[in-house]
Amino acid sequence: MIVGVLGGGQLGRMLALAGYPLGLQFRFLDPAPDAPAGQLAELMVGAYDNAALLEQFVCGVDVVTYEFENVPVATVQMLGRHVPIYPPPKALEVAQDRLTEKQFFQGLGIPTPPFAPVDTFIDLTAAIAVIGLPAVLKTRRFGYDGKGQVIVRTAEDVAEAWAKLGGAGLIVEGFIPFERELSILAVRSRSGATVFYPLVENSHRDGILRRSIAPALGLQHSLQEQAETYSASILCELDYVGVLAVEFFETGGTLIANEMAPRVHNSGHWSIEGAVTSQFENHLRAVLDLPLGSPAVEGYAAMVNLIGTAPEPAMVLALPDAHLHLYGKEPRPNRKLGHITLCAADRPTLDARLAQLQSSLPS
Amino acid sequence: MIVGVLGGGQLGRMLALAGYPLGLQFRFLDPAPDAPAGQLAELMVGAYDNAALLEQFVCGVDVVTYEFENVPVATVQMLGRHVPIYPPPKALEVAQDRLTEKQFFQGLGIPTPPFAPVDTFIDLTAAIAVIGLPAVLKTRRFGYDGKGQVIVRTAEDVAEAWAKLGGAGLIVEGFIPFERELSILAVRSRSGATVFYPLVENSHRDGILRRSIAPALGLQHSLQEQAETYSASILCELDYVGVLAVEFFETGGTLIANEMAPRVHNSGHWSIEGAVTSQFENHLRAVLDLPLGSPAVEGYAAMVNLIGTAPEPAMVLALPDAHLHLYGKEPRPNRKLGHITLCAADRPTLDARLAQLQSSLPS
Repeated sequence: MIVGVLGGGQLGRMLALAGYPLGLQFRFLDPAPDAPAGQLAELMVGAYDNAALLEQFVCGVDVVTYEFENVPVATVQMLGRHVPIYPPPKALEVAQDRLTEKQFFQGLGIPTPPFAPVDTFIDLTAAIAVIGLPAVLKTRRFGYDGKGQVIVRTAEDVAEAWAKLGGAGLIVEGFIPFERELSILAVRSRSGATVFYPLVENSHRDGILRRSIAPALGLQHSLQEQAETYSASILCELDYVGVLAVEFFETGGTLIANEMAPRVHNSGHWSIEGAVTSQFENHLRAVLDLPLGSPAVEGYAAMVNLIGTAPEPAMVLALPDAHLHLYGKEPRPNRKLGHITLCAADRPTLDARLAQLQSSLPS
Repeated sequence: MIVGVLGGGQLGRMLALAGYPLGLQFRFLDPAPDAPAGQLAELMVGAYDNAALLEQFVCGVDVVTYEFENVPVATVQMLGRHVPIYPPPKALEVAQDRLTEKQFFQGLGIPTPPFAPVDTFIDLTAAIAVIGLPAVLKTRRFGYDGKGQVIVRTAEDVAEAWAKLGGAGLIVEGFIPFERELSILAVRSRSGATVFYPLVENSHRDGILRRSIAPALGLQHSLQEQAETYSASILCELDYVGVLAVEFFETGGTLIANEMAPRVHNSGHWSIEGAVTSQFENHLRAVLDLPLGSPAVEGYAAMVNLIGTAPEPAMVLALPDAHLHLYGKEPRPNRKLGHITLCAADRPTLDARLAQLQSSLPS
């Protein structure tokens, strides 16, 4: 059984590592000749819209999935005429446009920050008059890791924000004074079975995820229930197959949806060691229509991203119950080079291990 | 960092799967073009004594190890002049010859069954007169999975056993009326740090390992201590580096050494999910002189080998906390095609899951 994967980054690499034990083989397509998945599987190098390459790519493959959410929707639609491809193109279409995404959430009754489309400076000032300040101006498309976003705090910031981003299709969103950022991984298989991982607590810096802790501290049943209800309605509406990540702001005991990613997600990397079944294995089980595995967490897990520089492996491996994941990438500022997962039976032990790790890492 | 591995079977494949997250790359050498490790790493195909190939193999590699214990000692010695190679050649030499191995155990004060070298029919009858019956006649070299062994139960069996095996260098051993077969995995790193996994209980059929349960039922501290003391003396005597497996017979609360394997071992596969650190990762940590990881077991784990035929993945994955490992091999009678690991918090739950699995597997 050969799984074709669009995108050969670390997510693809970890999909392959989860899939080999299931007897699967992998073929990746990525524009970068040094894509991390290429170190351990077949890699075809070229653009996602190279028709001749896509034809070769799909030949002999049993199922296709993707690990990069800016794959052209047209590519996914085209491949879908030859081979099963999951998640469905509609999911990609929704997730690629922040405006469509917010409208989609709204249509399902999932709370979002107030938002408005912005195409002109007049749109922006009009929207801010309604939404209020602070607000966040974002490009509708191709934003990731905080790129394509400007916070507008005062009336003076408005023109500057427009100068930075104006031109592309934009969206302005009310800034939510959230207590925490939480995310959930939801999984749905081809036969419609679903499982949900527990909500995890995420910390970002400079727009990049730095740390996830699973489960979120003091996770109330009602909060997990909200997250499951919201993500279940997304799964159902999209006839979704695979892992879906949904990011929320927590404020006053309720969840406000921020965005979704139709793929395995950085905030789920802890599941490799921290859950009975990892998000990577469950994504593969889902797209192959195999029974889904338990998402149950054993104790507590923390995931720390290695951004820009990676520590000496010996330092990490000397820590108790620390698991190092390097992606085989050259160091570069703000690049995700790997992550470390720490596990512990209880939260105080986890926090102590986390403090020990953080003190040894370059800040 | 590139790790060269002599042998590209499932053990090598699982070494690579454990090593990729550490940022390692792998190069395998195996005579079989379809060796399982070749599906996920560079594979050089050829004989273990092909000097030109070995020269290519070792070029650019940082460290060499092996996953097959019948690699020629001369090959390991030769490679050792170019690059660090672990475990040391002496370990291979000892493990490749059942007579040398038993004498080695004896020299370290480790109990063994009574044994005697057999080169002629007269040697055999003389040895049996001393050792008594039943006894086991074995080839000294190249035995695995019960091959090259004949049980001699009665005086009439002696001539038949000789007819089957006579000619090669042989050893005859007293048959130990054991209660259980246990094994331990011991790990020693280049800096001399050691860790020991708990004793596991193994069940064989037709000379092939079928099942391991970790830790062994009712494992007494004294038994674990014996096993650690014996294996520590082997590690020390050989200045060993890597994972070493030692198999014992348990009889009346004591351990009698049966054999050792200077490599990762089938009876340690449960450690992938069942221990904090798998035997594969710890073998790599050892040969790279990284800190060793904890061998602690969380709850209980059982490993069931898939011999000759493999079940439908969907059947296995529907069981709670079941982990499927297929090696990418074509089915063939008596061939190890994969294994399943079951985990549980307590032994009764493990036993119930094991019974459920066994009832679904072809016998």
